[in-house]
Amino acid sequence: MTLLADLLSIVFERRYRKSAIRKAKDGRPVKELASDLVGSTGEVSGLAMADELLTRFDMMDDESKLDFFRHIAIKMNIDPEAVRSTLYNYEQNPSRASYRAFMTAAEPRRQELIRRLNEAQGATGALVQMRADLLRLGKGEPELEALDLDFRHLFVSWFNRGFLIARPINWESPAHILEKIIAYEAVHAIGNWEELRRRLEPIDRRCFAFFHPSMPDEPLIFVEVALTKGIPNSVQGLLAEDREYMSAEEADTAVFYSISNCQAGLSNISFGNSLIKQVASDLSAELVGLRTFVTLSPIPELARWLKQEGLEWDLSHPEQMSATAAYYLLNAKRKGGMPFDPVARFHLSNGAIVHAICANADISDKGLAQSGGTMVNYLYDMGKITQNYEHFLTTQKVVSSSTVKSLANSCSILQVQKR
Amino acid sequence: MTLLADLLSIVFERRYRKSAIRKAKDGRPVKELASDLVGSTGEVSGLAMADELLTRFDMMDDESKLDFFRHIAIKMNIDPEAVRSTLYNYEQNPSRASYRAFMTAAEPRRQELIRRLNEAQGATGALVQMRADLLRLGKGEPELEALDLDFRHLFVSWFNRGFLIARPINWESPAHILEKIIAYEAVHAIGNWEELRRRLEPIDRRCFAFFHPSMPDEPLIFVEVALTKGIPNSVQGLLAEDREYMSAEEADTAVFYSISNCQAGLSNISFGNSLIKQVASDLSAELVGLRTFVTLSPIPELARWLKQEGLEWDLSHPEQMSATAAYYLLNAKRKGGMPFDPVARFHLSNGAIVHAICANADISDKGLAQSGGTMVNYLYDMGKITQNYEHFLTTQKVVSSSTVKSLANSCSILQVQKR
Amino acid sequence: MTLLADLLSIVFERRYRKSAIRKAKDGRPVKELASDLVGSTGEVSGLAMADELLTRFDMMDDESKLDFFRHIAIKMNIDPEAVRSTLYNYEQNPSRASYRAFMTAAEPRRQELIRRLNEAQGATGALVQMRADLLRLGKGEPELEALDLDFRHLFVSWFNRGFLIARPINWESPAHILEKIIAYEAVHAIGNWEELRRRLEPIDRRCFAFFHPSMPDEPLIFVEVALTKGIPNSVQGLLAEDREYMSAEEADTAVFYSISNCQAGLSNISFGNSLIKQVASDLSAELVGLRTFVTLSPIPELARWLKQEGLEWDLSHPEQMSATAAYYLLNAKRKGGMPFDPVARFHLSNGAIVHAICANADISDKGLAQSGGTMVNYLYDMGKITQNYEHFLTTQKVVSSSTVKSLANSCSILQVQKR
Amino acid sequence: MTLLADLLSIVFERRYRKSAIRKAKDGRPVKELASDLVGSTGEVSGLAMADELLTRFDMMDDESKLDFFRHIAIKMNIDPEAVRSTLYNYEQNPSRASYRAFMTAAEPRRQELIRRLNEAQGATGALVQMRADLLRLGKGEPELEALDLDFRHLFVSWFNRGFLIARPINWESPAHILEKIIAYEAVHAIGNWEELRRRLEPIDRRCFAFFHPSMPDEPLIFVEVALTKGIPNSVQGLLAEDREYMSAEEADTAVFYSISNCQAGLSNISFGNSLIKQVASDLSAELVGLRTFVTLSPIPELARWLKQEGLEWDLSHPEQMSATAAYYLLNAKRKGGMPFDPVARFHLSNGAIVHAICANADISDKGLAQSGGTMVNYLYDMGKITQNYEHFLTTQKVVSSSTVKSLANSCSILQVQKR
Repeated sequence: MTLLADLLSIVFERRYRKSAIRKAKDGRPVKELASDLVGSTGEVSGLAMADELLTRFDMMDDESKLDFFRHIAIKMNIDPEAVRSTLYNYEQNPSRASYRAFMTAAEPRRQELIRRLNEAQGATGALVQMRADLLRLGKGEPELEALDLDFRHLFVSWFNRGFLIARPINWESPAHILEKIIAYEAVHAIGNWEELRRRLEPIDRRCFAFFHPSMPDEPLIFVEVALTKGIPNSVQGLLAEDREYMSAEEADTAVFYSISNCQAGLSNISFGNSLIKQVASDLSAELVGLRTFVTLSPIPELARWLKQEGLEWDLSHPEQMSATAAYYLLNAKRKGGMPFDPVARFHLSNGAIVHAICANADISDKGLAQSGGTMVNYLYDMGKITQNYEHFLTTQKVVSSSTVKSLANSCSILQVQKR
Repeated sequence: MTLLADLLSIVFERRYRKSAIRKAKDGRPVKELASDLVGSTGEVSGLAMADELLTRFDMMDDESKLDFFRHIAIKMNIDPEAVRSTLYNYEQNPSRASYRAFMTAAEPRRQELIRRLNEAQGATGALVQMRADLLRLGKGEPELEALDLDFRHLFVSWFNRGFLIARPINWESPAHILEKIIAYEAVHAIGNWEELRRRLEPIDRRCFAFFHPSMPDEPLIFVEVALTKGIPNSVQGLLAEDREYMSAEEADTAVFYSISNCQAGLSNISFGNSLIKQVASDLSAELVGLRTFVTLSPIPELARWLKQEGLEWDLSHPEQMSATAAYYLLNAKRKGGMPFDPVARFHLSNGAIVHAICANADISDKGLAQSGGTMVNYLYDMGKITQNYEHFLTTQKVVSSSTVKSLANSCSILQVQKR
Repeated sequence: MTLLADLLSIVFERRYRKSAIRKAKDGRPVKELASDLVGSTGEVSGLAMADELLTRFDMMDDESKLDFFRHIAIKMNIDPEAVRSTLYNYEQNPSRASYRAFMTAAEPRRQELIRRLNEAQGATGALVQMRADLLRLGKGEPELEALDLDFRHLFVSWFNRGFLIARPINWESPAHILEKIIAYEAVHAIGNWEELRRRLEPIDRRCFAFFHPSMPDEPLIFVEVALTKGIPNSVQGLLAEDREYMSAEEADTAVFYSISNCQAGLSNISFGNSLIKQVASDLSAELVGLRTFVTLSPIPELARWLKQEGLEWDLSHPEQMSATAAYYLLNAKRKGGMPFDPVARFHLSNGAIVHAICANADISDKGLAQSGGTMVNYLYDMGKITQNYEHFLTTQKVVSSSTVKSLANSCSILQVQKR
Repeated sequence: MTLLADLLSIVFERRYRKSAIRKAKDGRPVKELASDLVGSTGEVSGLAMADELLTRFDMMDDESKLDFFRHIAIKMNIDPEAVRSTLYNYEQNPSRASYRAFMTAAEPRRQELIRRLNEAQGATGALVQMRADLLRLGKGEPELEALDLDFRHLFVSWFNRGFLIARPINWESPAHILEKIIAYEAVHAIGNWEELRRRLEPIDRRCFAFFHPSMPDEPLIFVEVALTKGIPNSVQGLLAEDREYMSAEEADTAVFYSISNCQAGLSNISFGNSLIKQVASDLSAELVGLRTFVTLSPIPELARWLKQEGLEWDLSHPEQMSATAAYYLLNAKRKGGMPFDPVARFHLSNGAIVHAICANADISDKGLAQSGGTMVNYLYDMGKITQNYEHFLTTQKVVSSSTVKSLANSCSILQVQKR
């Protein structure tokens, strides 16, 4: 059976890698391995070297990792002279050969190194981890920031939307995947397996993740969905232990109440947009009663922005908090004109609009600290997404419901401040 | 169950693509679509445009395809001035930003176009087909040959060894895969389903293919294996209708008797080496009795070479044919010093050696025409592969068994000719 | 992954059986093995004996099989004295122990034998084959016909509807399953793989089969479905090589145009009813446009009945043929009052009604010979199935559309004959 | 893909059942439903009635369940007169028809009822649950104990060894299966998910369960295995939190340290023997270094037996405890001659022997209470299993290693007592 075969080979490959990565077998210094790998003419010893290099890197301390990164950043950089002369030749005599020479010169050899490393079985995950190390260690060093661009350039190809697989995550999912959901949940923390079960098992809850075929054990990003009647206005209600379940068929609304990226090494390679759209499309096909797709989102930078603006807030006036939040979401900008709030940037760039402000919607310590408990519903109107995001990207104007607009206008303190 | 989910999503995605790709929905000219796609800032309309463009391309005649290729080859090429100035800036002030600007300038926008096209569901197969068209139509045009290098550059990343999945192909495989095996077999043609069954069903026969997760219905390359006692010396014997089957456990030899590439659009992206090694490794693990890994290979260019050298052959003296073949394999070179014979180049570059010459080993019309029926066993000695191929790639010297060496030395006619 | 494990174990078990069944290892005569197996106190040697016995039976000629059947039919029959005395004890003193003694006495030991044989891995298929042999060889011998009832009694439990799995069969199904579809098609023969493809691959064709988890390679029964607009009136139209395909979403009618039982050894254990209902339910869920579920069925006994009644037919008057067929379906009865026609009995017992007569609907040799090319549409009105079949089973009255009723009334020849 | 289809249908069927079983739709009293179901002539309304009856039963309180059980036990019992007269007819005129009449009369109609109930999708699990209720409620009532024999008779057919599927359970298994492992572990309790992980995830630990295809979410029995070097002599060592893991390839011994039955409703239908043999065989195939298959088993009835014999024990003399345990295992018998200890009966009946006594091997409260912490290794010598169990079942003699024999002989207190 082909399917069986697939699984066997995937499992085999993972096993192979697992054991292979544990023991260094080759005496060559890592830097030498890197040069030899790039120079290697055939696949045979290339695979062994790639394996060896990844194994050795994995066992290094941060000092040695940094040293290795600097080495390849500098020694495997482009040679400007070569770029110039091959470019000149190509201009004089454009041909397959002259173009190839230019391509080779214009791409730093470290890109070829990363590509060759990726040929080892199961290497993709190890390279994602390597980039996570680079991002952590390389901050502020121009050479290493440039090296990161090479990683990113290749990852954009490898983690192409067309290669990703959307999987439901539920209480029938493998435990080793579920423990990662617990670990990676970034918005509303999951304390233990019982809490996890409450998010996955009920018939009115869903969760979906993107996976890459070469990293079948690692979710890349996941979204948690509540199926509800009407748009919810607090996360306490959604996550209440004793709430009543509802049949999925009765739901008219799908609420994306938590989206978490899982891989530090895939920073700046965005999947959230695709995942939301895929999930909305899958749910629509399954549940014909669904009319509304909406988020219940935090406003993570509200408090920070108020402080920066020298403003105070008063938790005892929720309606004022709401007005302030509305004002902030519609008007607070970072340099360049994009919204100040990162979650707003994300959803507005996906074609959502600001639909409603919810006071006292997240009264956890974290929720109170970052936004006085206020949250926001972004609305995904599937028929208008394209139009919305194009309008947003062109004008950077935040579109909102008229209610939110009025609310923002009613924000007295800020209007004073504005004057 | 996650696995179910995987399949569902894969199946869904293919279905979606199938129907989506059929109808053009967007009035924009294709060239405009291409520009807009590269310029598109968000995923939302990008996916729709990619889909549309692939659909439209698929429906074009060759004339229009050629026109499209020329358009993107020329209009989306690098801008040498931009390369030079960004390079200069980078040299003056190496930073993440200046490096990024150089990267962007040094990569033609058509690469970004291909990457964005690949984001559509199931687009990978369509792009492989597009490159097949390009190779067919673009021969001799420097701009199109350069464009092909861009396709190739991206395909090397996407069809990375680490992303490929080796699957056994057998009589329990899906019919729509098996019919492709019939269609793609390039060495010893398969006439119908009964012949196919004789190659797949017997317990002493195996077949393996590489697949890419984004093209689950399309084998990329496959190898057919016979399990035997001793090294076989004719393909007639191997494929005889009435031969006796043997239990796989009794076999001491695995014979790779046919390797076929399936995708014209993946030309020059080599998988054969990896597949042979993977299969040898999997078979060794399964069947501990296997000692010898060997091919029974055609000598496709022997006749052509003899003709080119002005030599005649005489089918009535098989021993002379064998000596001639041995001489040819060890000594006939193309410009640059690599063996004249393409199959020899393939196996020798993989670390195999020339083990034995088999007269009258393929007496089909094709076999007689290309080599007077002579075939060759290349031997894969798993412990010496690395050493062999490194020796070969460094020295270009063909290593052979002493028997073949003697046979080559006994080749009188050619020795005369050499003087 | 549990799923992988499942498959592995299933595959393993089949392989194991395949090799195990080939070689007899135990010197005991088969009859002795049978006694020992029934007497065996533990599973350990029981499994080995069961395997051995099945292997040996498989290698027997018909003579020896018959001898074996007679042996167990007679030597492992009930002992009337034991039945009577345990029954008496149970009546006197009803208890778990006395009931158990009665149960044991009232069940012939050959049932226990069959159950123990079934414990061997993959034995179920071998036992189905054994019953096929029994049905073929045992006709007319009361002891063997009684033995068949024991097989049937156990098979009814083992092939319980709740254990069966409905699988779509399509062009992506494994070749070893598809070749069985070719072999087992009983209504409209499939000549080769190309014909099979025309029935499976088009988007407006479907095929479904029932499988038993212990015989995953053997379909038990399958039904072929055409999705159409309107009710078709000829099989030539349905199966035409050059017909236009239709998108499944546009279809308003699902036509069950062929139902084939696959296992002679499961004779009299009916699955057709369940399969039709399952398929109708699955298709309804998938394709919301479907309104009508109908068959296009042969009238296999029409010619035979006419001959039996001393009537002639005239192919040159199709309208007369239709009237005759209508009359036959509504009025011709076998002893006991059930319809004469076996296909009519099947569909009417499932709750269908006679909907329309189609002249010249199957002009193959077979179609012409059995019914002058006339066919019939039975209609499955999902809302009335229960009511229909209960009415039919109570009254044995054939329900038909008014058109068919008029047609039957117009049948002049037969009306004459009736007087 | 057939596999996909399988899963879909299984999943579908489970879903269907889940929702179907929740609401009663039919006004008829349950007893009437039961009669109608047995009398029902067609599948159509039969399935609906079966579904309804199971749903209604599930919602009953114990009182009503008991009432229902009594009803079918009495009203659907055999009719002795009918048995006698059909038996008489069969003797006079043995034929298919007369045998069939006898079969029908000799089988109580309640068996047919249970079979028909099982035709509903997913009914098997509901019937297992029904029998669990029966065993719980029916104790001591002869009619209900007899009814249980009918359940058991059918379950033996349905849970035939040939239908069971052995699956590995590991940290990649679905969470909803794993939570059942936590719940069902009967020997050494699993407190939480972390403890579960320690039993499943390490590379030197394994777990296997039997499943039935119609109850894919319910393990029937599972066994936990430790891979070790040498035979372990304490469960504390095996389960220590901080122990060092070992590569599975280095192990020479597989220790079955816990076997748990999961389904009260499958009481007296033994799978343990088959599971141990299957697992031993699978592990042998995977890990060629395994030489020894052994248990580390509790001695659950030692304390009870000592008390019954009026003997005292002294935990401060472990060597004395060991001798006592050895004596008990070899000599303590229940009525009929079988060993007093139920775990001993189980393993000895499977062909194991008493290999070694381990003092202080389970110092949990439970371990100390039932056997003063003493445990025992039963040895499965694969080559001698058949011989051992046949010897045991014939002679009821407990075979042990010479060490254990000496130990038993050294048991002074008991020898005194014996005199």
